[in-house]
Amino acid sequence: MEVYFDNSATTRPYDEVIDEMARAMKNFYGNPSSLHSIGVSCDKQLTDAREFIASTINSTKEEIFFTSGASESNNLFLKGLTKPGNHIIISKFEHPSILKTAQYLEENGIEVTYLDVDINGQIDLNQLKDSIKKNTVLVSVMFVNNEVGSVQDLEKIGHIIKENSQRAKFHVDAVQGYGKLPIDVKRCSIDLMSTSAHKLHGPKGIGFCYIRRGINPVPLVHGGGQEKGLRSGTSNVPSVLAMKKAVEITMSNLEANYKKVEELKEYFIKQLEGINDIRINSPVGDKFTPYILNVSFRGVRSEVLLHMLEEYGIFVSTGSACSSKSTKGSHVLMSIGLTDKEVDSALRFSFCDMNTKEEVDYTVDKLKKSLMFLRRIKK
Amino acid sequence: MEVYFDNSATTRPYDEVIDEMARAMKNFYGNPSSLHSIGVSCDKQLTDAREFIASTINSTKEEIFFTSGASESNNLFLKGLTKPGNHIIISKFEHPSILKTAQYLEENGIEVTYLDVDINGQIDLNQLKDSIKKNTVLVSVMFVNNEVGSVQDLEKIGHIIKENSQRAKFHVDAVQGYGKLPIDVKRCSIDLMSTSAHKLHGPKGIGFCYIRRGINPVPLVHGGGQEKGLRSGTSNVPSVLAMKKAVEITMSNLEANYKKVEELKEYFIKQLEGINDIRINSPVGDKFTPYILNVSFRGVRSEVLLHMLEEYGIFVSTGSACSSKSTKGSHVLMSIGLTDKEVDSALRFSFCDMNTKEEVDYTVDKLKKSLMFLRRIKK
Ligand SMILES: Cc1ncc(COP(=O)(O)O)c(C=O)c1O
Ligand SMILES: Cc1ncc(COP(=O)(O)O)c(C=O)c1O
Repeated sequence: MEVYFDNSATTRPYDEVIDEMARAMKNFYGNPSSLHSIGVSCDKQLTDAREFIASTINSTKEEIFFTSGASESNNLFLKGLTKPGNHIIISKFEHPSILKTAQYLEENGIEVTYLDVDINGQIDLNQLKDSIKKNTVLVSVMFVNNEVGSVQDLEKIGHIIKENSQRAKFHVDAVQGYGKLPIDVKRCSIDLMSTSAHKLHGPKGIGFCYIRRGINPVPLVHGGGQEKGLRSGTSNVPSVLAMKKAVEITMSNLEANYKKVEELKEYFIKQLEGINDIRINSPVGDKFTPYILNVSFRGVRSEVLLHMLEEYGIFVSTGSACSSKSTKGSHVLMSIGLTDKEVDSALRFSFCDMNTKEEVDYTVDKLKKSLMFLRRIKK
Repeated sequence: MEVYFDNSATTRPYDEVIDEMARAMKNFYGNPSSLHSIGVSCDKQLTDAREFIASTINSTKEEIFFTSGASESNNLFLKGLTKPGNHIIISKFEHPSILKTAQYLEENGIEVTYLDVDINGQIDLNQLKDSIKKNTVLVSVMFVNNEVGSVQDLEKIGHIIKENSQRAKFHVDAVQGYGKLPIDVKRCSIDLMSTSAHKLHGPKGIGFCYIRRGINPVPLVHGGGQEKGLRSGTSNVPSVLAMKKAVEITMSNLEANYKKVEELKEYFIKQLEGINDIRINSPVGDKFTPYILNVSFRGVRSEVLLHMLEEYGIFVSTGSACSSKSTKGSHVLMSIGLTDKEVDSALRFSFCDMNTKEEVDYTVDKLKKSLMFLRRIKK
């Protein structure tokens, strides 16, 4: 049996997405900037995709921009909307594409406040309010944390920002939330948002970002003037169309998938009950997404456990994919206040709508076996 | 008949490339940063692709980096290797992803010298030599110009740079040359090079750049640390593999394709002989690539002619794709010294190995008809 429980790292594209990619590479290979009809028809495809995607977050097509993915979009917003002397606010457990970029900004004369996160992975709203200053230009908070799965109350956060500043823009890194939980940029007063298609069974190397009308970041990539000058480079029409297909499928199953995965996670946690000395770092409930189950198996090094599971064809993560090769413990798990022991022994199981209870049964069985072995040899 | 003579704007992917994309999306969807074997096998694919691509330009795999394409790579080098007070040298007829970026640098305290280009689209080598100063950190010259098709003598340019500076790096925008003409980064003393896969029947949204060992541009995209920290973002393995496929096909047919397209261009020019009052802006010979034929049809607005040809199923460009929607005349054609009349009436026919003489015959026939009509109504 092969069990892929690493859907937060990346997902397997839907078959329909692969087909659409192939179809679009054949039929819409043109350059939308060309004057002739091959170009024009590609441009129309882009516009249609923009319009459809806009409808999924309650924005307009003029506010949707295509990039190579969320790392790029996150960099675009943090770098393109700040100047020396400005102040920005982010949380302590953002993705590296925010955190590392913020550190880069600090080296270049921009002040950064790092908000604390509590044991449930919620940012400190009072601290947020108190941190907003005259020179605060941006607040960047992730919708769903990629390691522990906590979900922020974006409506409350948006409200606090807008109540306390006319200047500060609200950016949401929605990579792990978009396509899984509903999101309404108007209701949440979101000004900017980043996504990546490969997290929702779409292709890699493509994503969209939302930029509220009137906001003009300095481009990361200058050139031919594509995406209204905000992101130059020959438009990647086939990937946009394949992303659109993934979004169509995901969005039309949003609630059903959520329910399915929620049951799966509940079931998984229940099956884990027999195992000693573990900590569920992402319990069921409003504060966490069902798509991520993070568990510490105290006394066991997570990497060792990961490789034992792999032998059984079960694929999971320690922290996140991009930090997995680092030797330091997860900054996310440390930020929510886990002990070193809990950090070092944490595994992330991340689900998609195609996962099944049988896969959970199989995984828990192998987990028990592996833990028994690992804990025995330690004694 | 449908005739696609706009291959410099973008190409139709080879069928093998489309198949490879689909195969890779199915089989190598994993995240190379993951610790488990699905990730590891994807990482191995990346390494193999790097190694193969390195071999095509006489570099090493450690010097090959994947980006979303040449616009990004060009921006990475210009922005990431300069500081206020530095000086860079580029030619007057670079692609907008260089020119616009250079203008952005100028607004940020970096000095830019714009080299003149002669009627054959060759940069002024004496001026290059004289322009190199103590604070020159970068010289950026395109291999093949995208509108007029002129080819620079990279070996000579590299030699001049290295003879006159220990500091200045040599960057080559090789988008229109790679996969069509041989290129050897060592022999030409090239330090940095940019390419895009979609210009050689590969997928869009992917390219590679070459960065000579020891050169460390500040990343455009900070984050998870992919591409040795130089370009963060989940690796786009399927697109890399599809690009590799395109490169394999192109490289194994480099000479045969060159010959075929050269004959096609010669034939095309011969067929044009009967037409009055035209100017071949990209004659046959060493100084121009056979892949581009730029012709001015004096007295006719190129856009009108383009749309007339389109009615016959013939797809060509005025200037380049990304400047085609601008109302200003082509900066490239102006830079080589064409008259306004010649600039306004220029069409670019750009070829690939799949084009045929029959397509040329058909095109020239329709060109004659269209010109007869347009020139008659003007009288
Ligand atoms: C929360 C979050 N933000 C940003 C990213 C970056 O996305 P990408 O690697 O597609 O650029 C990821 C995933 O890697 C993520 O999980
Ligand atoms: C010479 C040259 N440089 C750079 C580019 C930019 O490439 P891309 O649009 O793939 O980023 C192009 C094509 O658009 C080009 O022709």
